[in-house]
Amino acid sequence: MALPTADPGRLHEEGRTVRDALEEARQQVAALFGAAPRQVVFTSGGTEAINAAVWGATRRAPGAPVLYADVEHSAVREASDRLAPTERIPVDASARIDSAALAARLGSTVLPRPALVHCQWANHEVGTLQPVRDVVALCRSAEVPVHVDAAAACGHVPLDLDELGADLVSLSAHKMGGLPGAGALVIRRGSRFEPLLVGGEQERGRRAGLEALPALMTFGAAAAALHGDDQGLLHEEARRSRAQIAALSTRATSVEDVDIVGPQSEDERLPHLVCLGVHGVEAEPVLIGLDRSGVAVHSGSACSSESIEPSPVLDAMGIDANHSLRISVGWSTVDDDIEAFGRAFADVVAALRALRN
Amino acid sequence: MALPTADPGRLHEEGRTVRDALEEARQQVAALFGAAPRQVVFTSGGTEAINAAVWGATRRAPGAPVLYADVEHSAVREASDRLAPTERIPVDASARIDSAALAARLGSTVLPRPALVHCQWANHEVGTLQPVRDVVALCRSAEVPVHVDAAAACGHVPLDLDELGADLVSLSAHKMGGLPGAGALVIRRGSRFEPLLVGGEQERGRRAGLEALPALMTFGAAAAALHGDDQGLLHEEARRSRAQIAALSTRATSVEDVDIVGPQSEDERLPHLVCLGVHGVEAEPVLIGLDRSGVAVHSGSACSSESIEPSPVLDAMGIDANHSLRISVGWSTVDDDIEAFGRAFADVVAALRALRN
Repeated sequence: MALPTADPGRLHEEGRTVRDALEEARQQVAALFGAAPRQVVFTSGGTEAINAAVWGATRRAPGAPVLYADVEHSAVREASDRLAPTERIPVDASARIDSAALAARLGSTVLPRPALVHCQWANHEVGTLQPVRDVVALCRSAEVPVHVDAAAACGHVPLDLDELGADLVSLSAHKMGGLPGAGALVIRRGSRFEPLLVGGEQERGRRAGLEALPALMTFGAAAAALHGDDQGLLHEEARRSRAQIAALSTRATSVEDVDIVGPQSEDERLPHLVCLGVHGVEAEPVLIGLDRSGVAVHSGSACSSESIEPSPVLDAMGIDANHSLRISVGWSTVDDDIEAFGRAFADVVAALRALRN
Repeated sequence: MALPTADPGRLHEEGRTVRDALEEARQQVAALFGAAPRQVVFTSGGTEAINAAVWGATRRAPGAPVLYADVEHSAVREASDRLAPTERIPVDASARIDSAALAARLGSTVLPRPALVHCQWANHEVGTLQPVRDVVALCRSAEVPVHVDAAAACGHVPLDLDELGADLVSLSAHKMGGLPGAGALVIRRGSRFEPLLVGGEQERGRRAGLEALPALMTFGAAAAALHGDDQGLLHEEARRSRAQIAALSTRATSVEDVDIVGPQSEDERLPHLVCLGVHGVEAEPVLIGLDRSGVAVHSGSACSSESIEPSPVLDAMGIDANHSLRISVGWSTVDDDIEAFGRAFADVVAALRALRN
């Protein structure tokens, strides 16, 4: 089949071909995440999905507060801050959301009922797996809408959204091997939802605009590959990633004054990333030194290189963001890459520390 | 180069490669439209650009009215209706915006100053080229922000946005040969703009979310191809499209009781589309009959097949949308296709009329 670029909202043959491809992608994504296809609203990515979730929830309860932890992604925090009064859910030193504190807040008879509670599935900087099932159960019990940002977790750990029962779940294609420009907001069955983008009846009236079919097809294909035979590939990749991250962490922490930031136990983290604290040197020269050795990592100090703000995630945990590096592995990472990282990391840190002395 | 999927907001080598590709696409789009690259904010498409334009303008003047004509795209109308009180700019029977009426409104000393005036560059259903330069000049003179929806026109007629001087201009990649999933909002130099999507510093803080680079590269490539040697390809395609539409219109209107809806003169329309009124038969069976003959056209009765509302555009012009067909040609249309259309159209209309007698 040629790359389909016709409008799927049309009666003609070309439109049907594209519509079939679109619905196949929707079924593939739904299947991986245990959702029904009609729950899946395709978006341009995780950021749009999150902004749409906050928009829809706050439009249903104008003036009501939105609750989130400071370790949520900036899209969650900023989209909430501008549309509603907000309150903070506390976290511990591992960035883990305090569900007991949330329970107390939701049980309050004097504070206003929230428009929305956010709970990320896993943290995007240090990998903390959140008590998402507890948080969703608390919210469902209190009849408060809950949004789960699963952009960092999707494709890396199994997510069964039917079992979870959250009102809104955000997904990102590029975080699981699809192209940038695709994502989804999964909406609980029977929920009504006011769209963020209006002006067309696409996505059952829940997101206007011609669907980005090429990118959405890669989202579907990635989901189908991971889902495969009883999520065989997802589990296999998670096992391989976990082993590579464990080897990488052992190598890195054998360097003096280098430690793991966030959960120390690998069972409490995403399998494919780790955040390292490197004492005595700034993160940015380490990153540049690693890049010169052919290793691409990310400094924990900012969500985007254009932002100069320190990471609020690490700040909320009491960590010095300037000395932290986020390191992740992907489907194309081989064990030799881990070896190469270990050598380069030790050399770069030693050289930078020598400079300071 | 491999398909670039890394994050362009990163310091590492992979991020730089992607950033270079992104900025090349931005320069290509800016060059075709006579804008500076930093004015170009990439979006997921025309619909997002329009929603963002309305959001930004109404946030700067809460409660102030938005002015538009009923022939604007549904994205313009719906995005405006939900964020502000709105007023209508009248149109004539060719869907042409009445700039004298707008001038009178803007000159009013008793009515509130508008937050925004919309003026499409050309109508998406009947092709009417709007008095966009007059409208922008009126708004600039009245110091009222103006948004130009150029999604239907971009790539089909020359647009010099520097000369135009509009505050906000929306563009769509797939309307000019790029893939779906890409578009742009062009913002006037020196304008401040509150983004619709927040949570990242991409696009100079004016649109959060990882850039959809593959689709954006096709946007850039389409712009570069059309721009070419003094916009040679754009003019050549416009000439060919105009000749094909003229031949097609002659064939179609030679059938009894078939006429052109909207501007009768081809100089007053986009070169690549025409809307036909077919009396005595419904548009939908004509469309289905044409599809069975291998010709894909679009009924004027809805913007999307999932919508059952009649077209407000045709309604505003006093036209019966159920009897209207929008027909467009593209870069892959050859003269034989026009011949095939002419034969199929005459046969289908004759067969449907015979059924009614």
